[in-house]
Amino acid sequence: MELYTYFRSTAAYRIRIALNLKGLDATLIPVNLVKGSQRSDEYLKLNPQGLVPILRTDSGDVLNQSLAILEYLDETYPDTKLLPGDPLQKAKIRSFCYEIACEMHPLNNLRVLQYLEGSMKLSAEQKQTWYEHWVATGFKAIEQRLAELHTGSQAHFCFTESPTLADCLLIPQVFNARRFNCDMTPYPLINSIDQHCATITAFSNAAPSQQADAV
Amino acid sequence: MELYTYFRSTAAYRIRIALNLKGLDATLIPVNLVKGSQRSDEYLKLNPQGLVPILRTDSGDVLNQSLAILEYLDETYPDTKLLPGDPLQKAKIRSFCYEIACEMHPLNNLRVLQYLEGSMKLSAEQKQTWYEHWVATGFKAIEQRLAELHTGSQAHFCFTESPTLADCLLIPQVFNARRFNCDMTPYPLINSIDQHCATITAFSNAAPSQQADAV
Repeated sequence: MELYTYFRSTAAYRIRIALNLKGLDATLIPVNLVKGSQRSDEYLKLNPQGLVPILRTDSGDVLNQSLAILEYLDETYPDTKLLPGDPLQKAKIRSFCYEIACEMHPLNNLRVLQYLEGSMKLSAEQKQTWYEHWVATGFKAIEQRLAELHTGSQAHFCFTESPTLADCLLIPQVFNARRFNCDMTPYPLINSIDQHCATITAFSNAAPSQQADAV
Repeated sequence: MELYTYFRSTAAYRIRIALNLKGLDATLIPVNLVKGSQRSDEYLKLNPQGLVPILRTDSGDVLNQSLAILEYLDETYPDTKLLPGDPLQKAKIRSFCYEIACEMHPLNNLRVLQYLEGSMKLSAEQKQTWYEHWVATGFKAIEQRLAELHTGSQAHFCFTESPTLADCLLIPQVFNARRFNCDMTPYPLINSIDQHCATITAFSNAAPSQQADAV
């Protein structure tokens, strides 16, 4: 398998974690988003959307959209199931994932921030306010959801006693929020999960700072 | 089952289509987003995110996030499968869905547009430019993807000869784009799928104009 990735892309980071948790080998091919490599003719042939990540499977099929890739990996390599349980439990894990993937990340990814600053002429300060607003809105709801799932202010993973897709989504989003200096003090459960996952090599080896293309 | 819905919410519209395609009965409970009913104490108890739709299942469980609800319905009521095929085919259908659910809809939903106009002080004209930009970016990629799946400029559904989750996502997004007067002429395949689905009662009965809370 080949994963087209960028070290700071939270969507690519999700897949790196899942591959590690499942013990799957993939060649990581860096795409430099800041230099615009995702808009090269060569890359657009693979993904007309010009976004990372994409996964080229062992049979040569090209898949895009990180959540579609995660579901594909979980169905194709079901050892270490990341979306376990009955349909109801799966719905709860998926809902958690979408609260990040549909309500937080799309508003704060690179191309949106660039568009706000470029075409919409927002100041750097307004852009930061925008970023922090959607992080706070999203994490507030997620912390509340975690409080329903856990007793006290400590948790190892979002669901159950082993990692699921929810953790594959949460940890990159926390990384990104810290990168933009968001206040994380209101979210003790999110922080405790983040701290616990940092002690697990599947997560720590997937971190942006550990990637070959990190600058 | 009970579906908390708003007639113009594209996320609720997706579920209404899926319920109709599967022939499932659900009581529709309107939540007036413009009047702010989604931020009432009563509603926030059901969904701390304050978003529609939510589904209360026959066993009383409350599910949010439209894609999680769609996957749940497809797993729980597998007649008229909306996510058919092997893991690769499912990944392609999901990827199509996420191109709408993660790249278009989150940028253009009501609370984001309200925030741009309110807190970010964008003019109505800038808001329209923003809206049209993300519709055009998304639909351009989707039209290209459809061109790979179909010969000529006519198609009945996004995938295969029967409706899938992709159509449940596409039709509401087209409705929304038309509501904001976006130019749809560059997308012949999207338009032909939209026209075909309009002839099917499962789709037409789910349309915003047909809802009890339509104004």
